[in-house]
This record gives sequence, structure tokens and C-alpha cells, in this order.
Amino acid sequence: MKRIDFLSLVNNYKVVFLDSYGVLKNHEGLIDGVAQTISYLRKQGFIIKILTNDASRSRQQQVDLFKSLGLNGLKINEVITSGTLARLFLEDKKIKGKIGYLGTENAAEYILHIDRDSVPIGSIDLEHCDDISAFVFLDDEGFDWNVDINKTINLLRIKNIPVVVANSDKLYPVSARDVAVGTGGIAKLVENILNRKFIHFGKPDSQMFMFAYQQLLNEGNFSKNEILMVGDTLHTDILGGNKFGLDTALVLTGNTRESAVETMVSATGIIPDYICKSIVH
Amino acid sequence: MKRIDFLSLVNNYKVVFLDSYGVLKNHEGLIDGVAQTISYLRKQGFIIKILTNDASRSRQQQVDLFKSLGLNGLKINEVITSGTLARLFLEDKKIKGKIGYLGTENAAEYILHIDRDSVPIGSIDLEHCDDISAFVFLDDEGFDWNVDINKTINLLRIKNIPVVVANSDKLYPVSARDVAVGTGGIAKLVENILNRKFIHFGKPDSQMFMFAYQQLLNEGNFSKNEILMVGDTLHTDILGGNKFGLDTALVLTGNTRESAVETMVSATGIIPDYICKSIVH
Amino acid sequence: MKRIDFLSLVNNYKVVFLDSYGVLKNHEGLIDGVAQTISYLRKQGFIIKILTNDASRSRQQQVDLFKSLGLNGLKINEVITSGTLARLFLEDKKIKGKIGYLGTENAAEYILHIDRDSVPIGSIDLEHCDDISAFVFLDDEGFDWNVDINKTINLLRIKNIPVVVANSDKLYPVSARDVAVGTGGIAKLVENILNRKFIHFGKPDSQMFMFAYQQLLNEGNFSKNEILMVGDTLHTDILGGNKFGLDTALVLTGNTRESAVETMVSATGIIPDYICKSIVH
Amino acid sequence: MKRIDFLSLVNNYKVVFLDSYGVLKNHEGLIDGVAQTISYLRKQGFIIKILTNDASRSRQQQVDLFKSLGLNGLKINEVITSGTLARLFLEDKKIKGKIGYLGTENAAEYILHIDRDSVPIGSIDLEHCDDISAFVFLDDEGFDWNVDINKTINLLRIKNIPVVVANSDKLYPVSARDVAVGTGGIAKLVENILNRKFIHFGKPDSQMFMFAYQQLLNEGNFSKNEILMVGDTLHTDILGGNKFGLDTALVLTGNTRESAVETMVSATGIIPDYICKSIVH
Repeated sequence: MKRIDFLSLVNNYKVVFLDSYGVLKNHEGLIDGVAQTISYLRKQGFIIKILTNDASRSRQQQVDLFKSLGLNGLKINEVITSGTLARLFLEDKKIKGKIGYLGTENAAEYILHIDRDSVPIGSIDLEHCDDISAFVFLDDEGFDWNVDINKTINLLRIKNIPVVVANSDKLYPVSARDVAVGTGGIAKLVENILNRKFIHFGKPDSQMFMFAYQQLLNEGNFSKNEILMVGDTLHTDILGGNKFGLDTALVLTGNTRESAVETMVSATGIIPDYICKSIVH
Repeated sequence: MKRIDFLSLVNNYKVVFLDSYGVLKNHEGLIDGVAQTISYLRKQGFIIKILTNDASRSRQQQVDLFKSLGLNGLKINEVITSGTLARLFLEDKKIKGKIGYLGTENAAEYILHIDRDSVPIGSIDLEHCDDISAFVFLDDEGFDWNVDINKTINLLRIKNIPVVVANSDKLYPVSARDVAVGTGGIAKLVENILNRKFIHFGKPDSQMFMFAYQQLLNEGNFSKNEILMVGDTLHTDILGGNKFGLDTALVLTGNTRESAVETMVSATGIIPDYICKSIVH
Repeated sequence: MKRIDFLSLVNNYKVVFLDSYGVLKNHEGLIDGVAQTISYLRKQGFIIKILTNDASRSRQQQVDLFKSLGLNGLKINEVITSGTLARLFLEDKKIKGKIGYLGTENAAEYILHIDRDSVPIGSIDLEHCDDISAFVFLDDEGFDWNVDINKTINLLRIKNIPVVVANSDKLYPVSARDVAVGTGGIAKLVENILNRKFIHFGKPDSQMFMFAYQQLLNEGNFSKNEILMVGDTLHTDILGGNKFGLDTALVLTGNTRESAVETMVSATGIIPDYICKSIVH
Repeated sequence: MKRIDFLSLVNNYKVVFLDSYGVLKNHEGLIDGVAQTISYLRKQGFIIKILTNDASRSRQQQVDLFKSLGLNGLKINEVITSGTLARLFLEDKKIKGKIGYLGTENAAEYILHIDRDSVPIGSIDLEHCDDISAFVFLDDEGFDWNVDINKTINLLRIKNIPVVVANSDKLYPVSARDVAVGTGGIAKLVENILNRKFIHFGKPDSQMFMFAYQQLLNEGNFSKNEILMVGDTLHTDILGGNKFGLDTALVLTGNTRESAVETMVSATGIIPDYICKSIVH
């Protein structure tokens, strides 16, 4: 665990995997200087992949969102979301029948628009739900928590079907002070009530790193030690990167604050190879 | 674990502790024959205590509710609720300042009407919450889940204050088919997100049994082996009764069904002394 | 949470409940000055109760041990151990047949010497164990971990019997640097493997505080707000004391160090009413 | 979830991933008829991969062991063990210094014989352990549980280093009646005591399936829906296979018994695509 400037560190690699929230942006928008760093990395020939636990937007929508924040020129294949993985899973499993979901219509459209129907939990009739053959936790918005969380629990008591959590983050920041319960937090509540275990996608799980790595191999022959994983969260970015065999750098522009970093590393036992203040210097 | 008729079994005791939901009543009202059993127990001189994980109603309101269902003659000191315990805790700790809560005004009134102000989470201003000095999870109703669960989490991130869960049940039945997330389930979600541990009241915790036992000692000198604890739920009624040193009888009119009883006892390792179909025969 | 000298604080109370390890003694013996404090408390007429999660020694053996360390004059009814509670449970439940156990013969003798036979796990024949009707985790010594933990697991897979954990502490200190897995840690491993929940005794559970309080009531009429609970561990002493409705003081001579106290209180949400350096000043 | 004969089912695929214990062998040796099935699969041109949570033997030793049991002709690249993954991780991370371990010398030799020294926990001096830079849980044998589990805990309290669990199985069968705590169970105990999270390898984690799939791609171009994952354990084989996007078949020759299969699937929510009595018919 070595303190080092990001711009010095990165020169030892050819590829940079970056978390999104807390590394590139925060609740106020793009972090100051990030556009310059990305531009520098491009000029130097680095390959960039953004790995984000998000299932509320498609990869194209992610690219558009970054553009609206002032980060231009991202390509679709530079963004890997946990939603992408959930979608691939549903395609691979060739589930017949309808897929129920908790989340927004937008998320459902891009994740579930494979040749089948999807139904928001609010529109499912528990008396006639024989045709629901899988269920997906997509987002923490787009439904009524007062009613639809209980309805989800009752559906899953009746129907023993595969359940997918398209974003395993338990909470996410919404301002400098406040956080909100994320998709993974709601799914955890339901798992806890039902005493069951759903299929979770997103960091720290290896599948997301593997997907990014495989996309990378389409662009050239890279070994794992040519890749640096950069993130602000020990439990997702660093744990996942470490396990997948990548070098990892923790930045202090998000979940992990300068004052708490030593305590948190030692309390969790999750050890980044490097600590950088930000990706800006 | 012996199968036996309740009316034969009960004659070996002088006192009966009864869970409420699943033993005396269900989603349709009073269970058929329960009024007759209670009447029989009274005639035979049994002392009755109802121990219920509930913080939404006062003891008087519980008595009134049973009356409206057709069970007359209950007295206040025959009903012990987890809310009673939470209230005693708040009184004992002599907390200064206001108490924030999640739940209905009615619950707040009877649990928190000790000489102090209480404030529903919806009315708390996170910018000016210096005067909030404790927080109570009272009920799963009376607030907006979409907004107030997140607000509770953010309050408890700012304020390091004692947090009390006045009913630790994670879920409760609302119909023959459906359940709903209970106060304890919401508290568990918040504990999970914050990685903290609140102060929970209610079965299986010994405190509730102890409170009932102490009230009993005001009415005469009874030893624990003169008391039978009757409940429908292994994890609360039976575990708690066993641990407190009471003989326990599981009834099959609620959470534990005839077809699942052997599997559940063996899976949980929570073993009632007796199994009875109901308290009716 | 107020910083205060113990000797100033204690004058607001009439009774002091004290944890043993980390408050009165540590791995080197009696903490310097503790004998003087106890002597002072006695002269001032305070009532003292020592509440310790320990099932390896009888209350008399505890008194003798303190004497050998230089703390004279303790009486049996001033020491309450989690083992005492486990023993009462086994007496109350009037278990028929033999009781299997994991621990030392000494512990078995004083906890299980009620009118029945007890058998160490090493002597149980899994082919003929029909007569084993309960099992107790007594101690982390007195058996062969290489063999007897697995044997315990296999016994409890065959026999669905009540299982008691007579000391729920997961670990305990053995030197300034080292800790050891405690009875509660071994029990937790077995619970985790079997996916079952045993009956645990010891702080933070209310039952131990209630037992101490009831013994206190034999000596006079005291209300809870005349009692101060003093301990070095947030999760057991302070959580338990708080929940039982006592004022609590955290001392920094054991598990919780001066440098970590703020972080730990804020991370756990377990808040002592007072913080004292030790019970000496 | 369809009941079907394995030999009918398998014809819809080109590749079979097989768990070892409970599918190919049990405590008595090779399961009757398994050699014939494997021979049939080879003749029909199926590709076979054995995926086993085991870190006690090298892949060559696994091949030799199967041979000694009567299953001839396995090749090294047909066996993937969780130990293989742990070894790759340690190679990728280029850890400097010595690696401490809990397990047998044999396991250490094949997993850790990369250009560095390894030290069994028994030989580590806690006073001089500066040079230990990673730790691996290799096996449940080869050390003294009475001493070395505590020593491991104390080492990991002193040293904040990467910790790898080379086999995440919590328990394993040793006879028709008995089980034993596995490497993953010991690691879990230590994680629980330290409140930390280690890096676990083995099913159900995707990394093992990915490794097998990548090896498969060296032998030809196969899509995931040409692969059938066969296992006896819902939590490892079926959960992992499902998540990786493979069709899954549960066999009833191991951990999951005929009489319990419906209950377990419904309790866990882990749903195999198919249920087969064994791989023999």
C-alpha cells in the first residue's frame, strides 16, 4: 500500500479500469480535472474501461450522460455496467414466459428488451402470475416502495423462479451529506425476509472484470499485469480488482476519505496496492 | 416433542403465556373456538398473559381490539406488548431532548407520551436536528417508505443516538396468502445499510418474558415450571420460551404448518416441548 | 457520552455492576489500583456485582481466583457468571437423560452436577447416543479441537436436542498481543456449519442483568437508575446495560482503547452514557 | 426444473462440466456406473471438465487419485480445482516475501511452489513475521487445530496482508453419516472473529467457471448453451452454473437427497434446470 500520484503510477500500465461514481464524477457532476486526465490517457494511448454497478441506464445512455457532464468521446464499448451482465445472463438462460421487475421502464427496456415481455411488479396480478418465469431487481426508482416491496415478497413466495439483482450496491450517495438505499439494499431486504439468495451482478464479483477483460482482448493482447483498476470503494472496486488479479489503486474522491483510509483498510483487510488522492494529479 | 391435545396438556400448569397472532387470532379475526378455550381457562382458575410483538397499539387498545373481535373480559395487565418494553426503556434512560420516530402518530402517542416531545421522521429537518436525542422504529405504517426510510438512514448517519426497535418481527401475515415487511424488517434494512446494531425489543428476547413473569409474581407465587408458553412461531415464541426456562407448546394455527413442522424443527434446532393442533382442543 | 472520572461519577449511584476482564483484571493480573477502588466502594456502602461471561469456573472458584490475585473479600453472591444462567436453564427445563458437553471436567462438574450424568464429547459413542438429551458448549479447553469439533457437529446432525452456549464471547485476550477463540466462537462455527441457532447465555443478553438485579432486590429496594454498569466492551457490557435500562460507563483498560473509542462508538452505534479512563481514578 | 434421465439430457449438449464429490465419487470410492458413463461420453465426443473445490491436491494428483479409484484416462486439463485459481491469483499479484499457510506441506508445495518461500503457520514466529506478505488457507489438515487456528488469528491481527481461501467449502462428507469442517469453514471462523473478508476461490464464484470455459475455448469454439453443468450441491454447483449462464442439472447421489430436493430448492431459491437421479442412467 503505497501513496503515489496517479499520473506517475499509471505509466506502469497500458490499460486503466475505472469506477464511475467517486472516481470520475460525484453528486455535483464531473470531478474537476477528470476530463483533462482522460484526455491525457487517450493521447498516451491508454485503453480505458469504465466499470460501474448501474442497471438504470443503457451503455449508450451512460455515454450520453458523461457527455452532458462534459466528458466527451466515450464509446459504448468503454462502458461496462452490472446491468449488461444481468442482461447477458437472461439471454443465456433463454427464460420462457414473462420477466417481472422492480425498477423504471427505461431500465426494463434496455435490459429486458430481448424477445420477450417484461412486467413491472405494479402490473403483476398475484392471482394470475403463472406466466412470470423470472424476476429482476433493476433500480430503486420507478415503483411505490409502500406497496411494491411487499408485493415483490409475496410474488416470490408464490413463484419459485430465478431472481436476478442487476446492481448489487446497497447504497449510493445523493449529495455531500446524504445517501440512498440502492437496488442491492432492497434486494438484500427481500433476501433477508425470504431467507433466500438471489443472483447478484456487479463488482466485486469477478464476472464484471472478466467481461471487461474479454472485451479488452478483442482490442489487443494484454496480460492482467498491464491493467490498473482504480476505484473509491474498498468492498467493490478494490476487493474485486484484487481477486481478479489486477493491481489496484484506491482514490480518495469518493466513499473513502483521507482521514478514514488507514482505519478502513485495516478493519476490512481489503488492501489496495496503491493509494492516490485522485486521478487528477 | 410430544403431540398432545392442548386441553389435556394445560392441566399440568397454572399459568398460560399466549402469543396473539396465529394462536388467538388470524387475518380473519378470532380463531374459531378460542373464546371458549379462554373462557374455560378462566373458569379453571388459570392465569393468562398475552405476549405480543406489537408496538402499534397500547395495551388498552389491544384489549379493545380483542373485544371487538369477540374476546371479552381481557384486562390490561393480561397483555404485554414489545412496545411496553420499549417505552419502559425510554423512561429508564431518561433521554433528554426530542425522540424521532418511524411509525404512526397513535403509536408515538402511547409509547412516547412521557414528558417529552416526539417528532415523526417526516417532520425532522436534517439541517437542524441537534435536539433529536433518540430514535424509535415503531411501526411499518404512518410514513412514506419512498422518502422516509432514506431520511431515517441519513438522520442516523448524522446523529449518533440510541436507536430502539419497538417490535422486532421482520414480517407479519396480512391474509391467507400474503405477508408484509414488519417494523423489525425495516429496522434490519437500516442496520444492514449502516452496519450498526440497534436495541431490539420483543420475543425471543428474555426481557419480555421477564416482564410478564414479574407481573405474574404480583398476583401470586408461581415457579417457572407452572407456566406453559404457547406460540405458533419457532424463532420467537418457542426459542424465547425455551431460553427463559418455560415449557413450550407449538400450535399449528399460524406460521408453522402441519406439513412443515418436522422439517422446520429439525432445520432450526428450535424444539418445542409439545406440539398441539390449536388451543381449541 | 461524557468523559468523567469514575470516582466522581460513581457517587451518583448506590450499586455498581462491573465486568471482570478488562475492568478489574487483565492478562497480567489485577489492574493496579483496583483493590483500592473496591475497598473504597465497600467503605462508602456501595453494593457490588461482578457480571462475567465465563462458564469455566464456579462462582466460588471465581471468588478464590480474585483472592489469589489480591482482591479479597468477594462473596459468592457478588459474582454472576454466564455459566450460572446456563445451569439454571438446564435445571428449569428438567432435561431427562445425559447431557453432552464440550469443555473441561471442572466446568462440567459445577455447571452440570445437577442430578444427572454428563458426558464429554470425546466419550460419546455416535453409534449409541440415544440417551444424550441436551448439549452444552462450556469452554474452549478440555478437548481436542482436531477431533471433537467435528464430532460435535456430527452428534448434532444425528440428534435434534437443545443446545446451550454457556459463554457467548467469541474471543478473549490471552496476552497484551494475543487473543484466543472463545466458547462462543466455537459455538458460532458449529451454528454456521449446521445453519442452526443455539441458546446463548451471557452479556449482552438481558437475562444476566435480570438475574443480577433480582439478587440485588434480595438485599434492598433499588431502582434501575441507582445502578451503574461498568465495562470495557461495547457489544456486551454497554449494549446489554443500555438495553436493560441502566446507565453505562465504558472504561479504557481493556478491549476499547483510548485511540479507537470515538471511531468504535460511532461505527457500532452503541453509546455509553459515560467514558472513564479506568475505575481507579 | 424437469426430472429427466442424464443420458437423454446430455445429448442436447457438447460439453459437460462435472463436480467431483457426490457426482463421480463418494466416501466409498467411485460411484457405481460412473466409469461407464465417462467412457460413453468420451466415445460420443463430449468434452469433459471436472470442477472441484479442492486445494489439497494438484491437478496431476487428482488425475492419479481418480485412476486409483478406477477412472482411467483423465487428463490434467480436464481437472480444474479451486487451488488452481488461488495459485494463479498469487502469481498474478507478484507478492514479495514469504507466504504463510494453514494446511499440508503437499498442498503448499503444489500451490505455492512459485519462486518464493512458503511457511506453515506452525513455523511462523509472531515476534518476527515482517517478511510474511500473504496468507493462504489451503486445507483442514496438516496443522494442530488446538494451537494453529488461534495463531493464525493473531498473525492476521498483527499483519494486514492479503488472505486467500483456496477452497471455500465449509464442510465435506467423510462417511455416509459424518461430515467434517472444511477449509472454508475454518476461514469463515477466522473471518467472523476478525470481522474481515478474505479472498475466496471456488464454486459458486464465477472465476472457476470462467477458467474452465477459457480452457474449453482453447479446444474449440463453444457457446455457453452447449455446456451442461452437473452437480450435487445447490449452493455451489447449481448457483454458480446458473449465474455463469449454463444449463444446470442436479444429481441426487451426494449432498441433496431425493426426499429433500423439493424443500431445499424452494427454501434456497436456487433452481436447477434439470434433476437427474445420477449420471449413470
